[in-house]
Amino acid sequence: MDVKIINPFLDATLEIINDLAHIHFEVEQFYIKKDECGCGDITGIVGLSGSVKGTVAVTFDENTILYIVSKILNEDFTQIDDMVIDTAGELTNMITGRAIEKLTKNGFSLMLSVPTVVHGKNHRVSHHTDGPKIAIPFSSSKGKFTVEFSFDREPKR
Amino acid sequence: MDVKIINPFLDATLEIINDLAHIHFEVEQFYIKKDECGCGDITGIVGLSGSVKGTVAVTFDENTILYIVSKILNEDFTQIDDMVIDTAGELTNMITGRAIEKLTKNGFSLMLSVPTVVHGKNHRVSHHTDGPKIAIPFSSSKGKFTVEFSFDREPKR
Repeated sequence: MDVKIINPFLDATLEIINDLAHIHFEVEQFYIKKDECGCGDITGIVGLSGSVKGTVAVTFDENTILYIVSKILNEDFTQIDDMVIDTAGELTNMITGRAIEKLTKNGFSLMLSVPTVVHGKNHRVSHHTDGPKIAIPFSSSKGKFTVEFSFDREPKR
Repeated sequence: MDVKIINPFLDATLEIINDLAHIHFEVEQFYIKKDECGCGDITGIVGLSGSVKGTVAVTFDENTILYIVSKILNEDFTQIDDMVIDTAGELTNMITGRAIEKLTKNGFSLMLSVPTVVHGKNHRVSHHTDGPKIAIPFSSSKGKFTVEFSFDREPKR
């Protein structure tokens, strides 16, 4: 997997979370998902089409999304409600949109669908693409989340 | 919501499940999702783009997907494993593909992304579109599943 594909997702995530929530997350080593190990409590999912088909999923632990949404909206959120779900979807949309913007500058051509959000304790996400499933974990003292993406084949310029 | 949008999803679902699994499900009354009441244990999700953006989610109870996959593959499946997850994704893909084929014949223009599958007991799905969220429940003595879809606005020809 070309680093030119991974870095846009990595940079977009740090930028969006930092811009909106003013939180710095550390980037952990990305990995290729071999099993369905990417568990979490709330996931935003966006489909990609254009020069190649793909999917992006951003999976948060409950504590992490509550902390992020509380920081963004400057109000204490203690449980997953409509506002938290909406914000998780919007974050997924913005991260993917920013990543695509960066990929487009590099000559790739991708369009995104609207986000779907799934919530439920400890669910697992699997991508039905032909290509590798890349997972980038982000962590801070307040929790962790994972950005995953996969394409049917490596996007070509 | 135009019945010309709903019927293709309804017919496509009955056709695909009947063709592949030889099971007849009853169609219950469709409804507009007001809250996040569409719960289930395994969900296939596909994004739509083209003349309008949208999402499709097919949510199964565990018993229902195990029954359907057992019938399709002619082998007993008693727990959700990789094969069941793959088949749930493929069913979502085929149902959406068939529905789009029907919509295309009616002059609509839509493309689908690859499916993502989420599994985890009793999760909930929400669509981040501007338009109404349509849910069509299907039931048989063996269980139930729901096909949901939503567009950013009503697709125009």
